[in-house]
Amino acid sequence: MTAKTDETLDFTPVFDAQGLIPCITSDRSGKVLMFAWMNREALDLTLSRGEAHYWSRSRKELWHKGATSGETQKVLDMRIDCDQDCLWITVEMQGTKQAACHTGRRSCFYRVIGKDNKLTFS
Amino acid sequence: MTAKTDETLDFTPVFDAQGLIPCITSDRSGKVLMFAWMNREALDLTLSRGEAHYWSRSRKELWHKGATSGETQKVLDMRIDCDQDCLWITVEMQGTKQAACHTGRRSCFYRVIGKDNKLTFS
Repeated sequence: MTAKTDETLDFTPVFDAQGLIPCITSDRSGKVLMFAWMNREALDLTLSRGEAHYWSRSRKELWHKGATSGETQKVLDMRIDCDQDCLWITVEMQGTKQAACHTGRRSCFYRVIGKDNKLTFS
Repeated sequence: MTAKTDETLDFTPVFDAQGLIPCITSDRSGKVLMFAWMNREALDLTLSRGEAHYWSRSRKELWHKGATSGETQKVLDMRIDCDQDCLWITVEMQGTKQAACHTGRRSCFYRVIGKDNKLTFS
């Protein structure tokens, strides 16, 4: 069953009880680089500045991605899902390391889950 | 700063207070098809059966994606992020419509957000 929110052109993002909305961040190739959260301020700054801003749940503060490391993310495309409770942005990494992950890797998703419940780096 | 969970080969997914972990679902091309949640049971079934299972937060029940519509998702790759609190699966849609979205579209992310805060179908 479709709902009004599925077809509207009004952007009415749904924030959760903590005032946050999940955000998937990919690169141009479709590789998912990271997953994070935005509050209203981070979302507005991402839209107005064209650079990814998140809400750091661990530090409880606005997080301009790459502000200290230089690994900023230029936003190429920003989408919302059918029920407007998840964002998907496509970005171009701007730093010298091209690392979205705090471990220094390009993507946070560097381990595959096997059927035996063991992980493999890949 | 890296933590033990970043480098271990032990799969120790972190579920939130509701017992859920977010899951990003892409197709082989890198297009994000949908975003949903898994509980422990859904995660185990996805791994053991090779077909995506989620937890429906609206219906409050295990959700074998496509069980009624035929739009099942064969899992090609399943990953966990650095801090093990988000899953990313790559799937092959099995149904006749190839629609991951309940609106009948391939992807739930069919609207782009403009700087003016208006949406465009794309």
